[in-house]
Amino acid sequence: MQPRVAGRKMSPKITTELLKQLRQVMKSPKYVQEPVQAYIVPSGDAHQSEYIAPCDCRRAFISGFDGSAGTAIVTEQHAAMWTDGRYFLQAAHQMDNNWTLMKMGLKDTPTQEDWLVSVLPEGSKVGVDPFIIPADQWKRMSKALRSAGHDLVPVKENLIDTIWTDCPQRPCKPLITLDLSYTGVSWRDKIVALRSKMAERKVLWFVVTALDEVAWLFNLRGSDVEYNPVFFAYAVIGMNTIRLFIDGDRMADPAVREHLQLDSTLDPEFKIQVMPYGSILSELQAVGAGLSPKEKVWLSDKASYALTEAIPKAYRYLTPYTPICIAKAVKNASETEGMRRAHIKDAVALCELFNWLEKEVPKGTVTEIIAADKAEEFRSQQKDFVELSFATISSTGPNGAIIHYKPVPETNRTLSVNEIYLLDSGAQYKDGTTDVTRTMHFGTPSAYEKECFTYVLKGHIAVSAAIFPNGTKGHLLDSFARSALWDCGLDYLHGTGHGVGSFLNVHEGPCGISYKTFADEPLEAGMIVSDEPGYYEDGSFGIRIENVVLVIPAETKYNFKNRGSLTFEPLTLVPIQTKMIDVNLLTQKECNWVNDYHQKCREVIGAELERQGRHEALRWLIQETEPLIRVQ
Amino acid sequence: MQPRVAGRKMSPKITTELLKQLRQVMKSPKYVQEPVQAYIVPSGDAHQSEYIAPCDCRRAFISGFDGSAGTAIVTEQHAAMWTDGRYFLQAAHQMDNNWTLMKMGLKDTPTQEDWLVSVLPEGSKVGVDPFIIPADQWKRMSKALRSAGHDLVPVKENLIDTIWTDCPQRPCKPLITLDLSYTGVSWRDKIVALRSKMAERKVLWFVVTALDEVAWLFNLRGSDVEYNPVFFAYAVIGMNTIRLFIDGDRMADPAVREHLQLDSTLDPEFKIQVMPYGSILSELQAVGAGLSPKEKVWLSDKASYALTEAIPKAYRYLTPYTPICIAKAVKNASETEGMRRAHIKDAVALCELFNWLEKEVPKGTVTEIIAADKAEEFRSQQKDFVELSFATISSTGPNGAIIHYKPVPETNRTLSVNEIYLLDSGAQYKDGTTDVTRTMHFGTPSAYEKECFTYVLKGHIAVSAAIFPNGTKGHLLDSFARSALWDCGLDYLHGTGHGVGSFLNVHEGPCGISYKTFADEPLEAGMIVSDEPGYYEDGSFGIRIENVVLVIPAETKYNFKNRGSLTFEPLTLVPIQTKMIDVNLLTQKECNWVNDYHQKCREVIGAELERQGRHEALRWLIQETEPLIRVQ
Repeated sequence: MQPRVAGRKMSPKITTELLKQLRQVMKSPKYVQEPVQAYIVPSGDAHQSEYIAPCDCRRAFISGFDGSAGTAIVTEQHAAMWTDGRYFLQAAHQMDNNWTLMKMGLKDTPTQEDWLVSVLPEGSKVGVDPFIIPADQWKRMSKALRSAGHDLVPVKENLIDTIWTDCPQRPCKPLITLDLSYTGVSWRDKIVALRSKMAERKVLWFVVTALDEVAWLFNLRGSDVEYNPVFFAYAVIGMNTIRLFIDGDRMADPAVREHLQLDSTLDPEFKIQVMPYGSILSELQAVGAGLSPKEKVWLSDKASYALTEAIPKAYRYLTPYTPICIAKAVKNASETEGMRRAHIKDAVALCELFNWLEKEVPKGTVTEIIAADKAEEFRSQQKDFVELSFATISSTGPNGAIIHYKPVPETNRTLSVNEIYLLDSGAQYKDGTTDVTRTMHFGTPSAYEKECFTYVLKGHIAVSAAIFPNGTKGHLLDSFARSALWDCGLDYLHGTGHGVGSFLNVHEGPCGISYKTFADEPLEAGMIVSDEPGYYEDGSFGIRIENVVLVIPAETKYNFKNRGSLTFEPLTLVPIQTKMIDVNLLTQKECNWVNDYHQKCREVIGAELERQGRHEALRWLIQETEPLIRVQ
Repeated sequence: MQPRVAGRKMSPKITTELLKQLRQVMKSPKYVQEPVQAYIVPSGDAHQSEYIAPCDCRRAFISGFDGSAGTAIVTEQHAAMWTDGRYFLQAAHQMDNNWTLMKMGLKDTPTQEDWLVSVLPEGSKVGVDPFIIPADQWKRMSKALRSAGHDLVPVKENLIDTIWTDCPQRPCKPLITLDLSYTGVSWRDKIVALRSKMAERKVLWFVVTALDEVAWLFNLRGSDVEYNPVFFAYAVIGMNTIRLFIDGDRMADPAVREHLQLDSTLDPEFKIQVMPYGSILSELQAVGAGLSPKEKVWLSDKASYALTEAIPKAYRYLTPYTPICIAKAVKNASETEGMRRAHIKDAVALCELFNWLEKEVPKGTVTEIIAADKAEEFRSQQKDFVELSFATISSTGPNGAIIHYKPVPETNRTLSVNEIYLLDSGAQYKDGTTDVTRTMHFGTPSAYEKECFTYVLKGHIAVSAAIFPNGTKGHLLDSFARSALWDCGLDYLHGTGHGVGSFLNVHEGPCGISYKTFADEPLEAGMIVSDEPGYYEDGSFGIRIENVVLVIPAETKYNFKNRGSLTFEPLTLVPIQTKMIDVNLLTQKECNWVNDYHQKCREVIGAELERQGRHEALRWLIQETEPLIRVQ
């Protein structure tokens, strides 16, 4: 799935009054020790989540701009919004004249720091919620401001919350427990493995701040954040203690109590102390105060400034990726099998959908929203379906060129036999997370559309079939996806792939395939990423072909330095529309790849369609997986 | 050319006495304010040069290990040497039992900081020459030591120099002036351009510390360092002043005085003040002391700690690449034409050499050293030849697998019709710098040798023929060079290409093609890099195919976002031995590339051979450039 989902509303929010209120509280002794001349409103929540709960959408509240990435800064005179190329149009539509759009990535756009320095009076204070800003970002910003004579200061109470009178409650939904058949490893064994990593690095405490890491560690899932089966919680793991910071009566659920063995008298080092979510800071400060020299506390360098500061500097051990993040990325056999099952069910739903679309689209009654809803309906018929894994990108014609598009009534377009249709969608099943993009034409594509589609397909295959040494980082594969496009002067302005969670976040670290990410960890067998090159022509159409793929060992003729090789196995098994392929642009090897892939779709998904008695969809699958024949 | 040249001697140097002396001066109040418990001896000189003069080979002097990369650390009890995979064998051979080899890149090898922390008594002082250690390295090392309770301290007098009784003199050779026909831009115009970059960044001073940057800026060359046409000097450029720090009577040379207009009464802002080389620190300190707030001094972040510290922190403006480094990388028309001429002459010399080798090798009288000398002889016959651009890598059979090999009497092997021969060589001509590798067989290569050679060739072509958008960084092309090898489980453990100077250093920044370099600047038309994938089989053979290539605009069918595309044009025009190619492993496109390349060699080099009356070499060239025919 591509960069997430954008706005529901495309008309600007009137923010004059809100900004006036914010500027008042920026000077109010009730909230700030000293007035702040600027206040930063980042995108994230206290866990640096990519997807956030409504109560955390503070930047959207103050500005109207609700794209997934953006930072607002309000000074006494100005209000400015930094966002990236995906959101220039949307932000411009959603914000009123009070706001200046700062287009990141353009040459003349100042950084937040440079801009602040240019507009602030000497010796200013710049405020930010210390729970929302990651420590690494605080450090960079603080240094830049200090060198220009200003100060970055933590403002304890979030100033947006003080003026957000109808702010929704923080969600606190029931938990799901996952047994060994799903997770492969018990939470006790995960704690044991974590403690052994801690011992290796000589740290005494580990602070779990990312929501998906808490969920993974305890084999629990929640639904506090839409599309992400996570729940608001922190954990602090000691060598003999486990503290879980979580609110509500969720620990009263007998299934959860049983799962976490809260009532058993087991070994004290696996006894979980349950504490209020809001007590994390004071508890961590107490841990920090009790440390002796050489005792260290491990945190992600993306943990919030507030939690990082709770541990005195000399005792901090910060890494870009936590051991949980890395362990979570390498799926075990149970997780891999679950992901396979989830992808089979997902393919069944999509075969049903595409079969239905082939019949309905020519009637002119199917809109992007109807198609998206239908996709969800078919998915929800599958076993262990929980929810979607992101807002469906259902886009036809020019809407397909908006990479992060989500249909809303104002933009909703009717599918037709004259336009390309791009569907990027996925679901959370109890056994796995899916994310698949297919680009279809329900009439006759033009030669140019086929040409572009075929270049994208060549890129998709180049990554999927790539063989590379163990230890290779994903970013070294990114150019393979672009080479065929580059040859003709084309390209796409997003990364090629992201890590995918196992019934967890559809975007997860630490691996990926992108020209942008250099901090990615090496790929290893068991990791799961997406492979999704594309091509977008503004105002005309969008093309993307996305499979979720599993990193597996590769057999090679030789074995240099005994390093071993890796390649990818597609988990997604949904036909790639052969009507869109210009076969003569494929090499024989690429042609064989398509035919082998379709053969596998036919066998695996065909059997499941048969089992589920979905005969019409099966007929569609068989017709769509006819082998390509390349004229030599 | 691959990682530079290694040792002359393979027997260990006995260092017991030297280490005793060093440990004495480490405690001597004559040299250190307080005793230092460890002393670091880095590889470099005060300009962070890759190639250094004999007087700067302090690490080789104290340890015996004279590879191009390595850091020695001596404590009261230990002596340890950090070096990378290229030099594990050589360092082990050249160092006696006093030394512990620290193999960088292996999992269990501690970093210098970690090792120091593990061996030093509490509260130790670690000394280093502040002129030799780059500021960025000082910062990292100092921070790590401080957090463990130790101190990194600058030791003014170099402690190795105090015990190096027969240390050679710092070279001070005459200068060469380059006129506009070579440089395309006068030094005055280069100063104007630099000052405009300084104005853009609002800096008042720029400190030129890299030797090739000084040489480039003033359109001067020297020969103080073997293979690199540079001279020991610094420069400090102000908005109205130019200070050149240089020793000897080199400024007495009338040609130099005329070139630099030292005696003319021109505009004061182009008046060069010549100062002693050794006065740079005190002059810079004076500059630093005279700054008002907001006045900044621009330095490379790789400049020495000593010079960086001369400017108070608040006034420093540090960047990884200086504007001179970036301007120097983009060759203008005069430089490009010079490079073309140099490569034509170089190809003539190599055609002569290979023709000679074809006749002589079967007689069994040609050794690696004889072949290298013969290559130099043929090159020296060409117009404007100055010297070699690096020590020739002339290696046959198993020696070819030693990537940085240089033949010495102890290892010198006779070329034969049974072994692969790898020649990596280049020269400095007054109009350009060359660097070319060819791998030849003078008998009948085995099917396996041809297979490996062909994979390397496919990688070479994949880079050379790559089309990519303007703004692409070189590291994004690295995997193209490896893909064919990876498919069979093979690889090579070095980067694919480096920037090449124009009658300057054969290795220069800021561009390159490597999986390792992430700080590379985007490629742009006019940059020149090498394209040199390889394959090495320990104990058997080495294969490398290297051309120097020019970045040029590419014509493409489409032009996404009007960005424009780039590709490479080979400047090196020396036949690639077709005998080594398994044509059936090439695609038709690759086959065409080879044939087109050979056609160009035949035309361009053929004409020059003809002009020079070198008829036998011309016959060889024509025979070696017969088109390949691929059986479909």
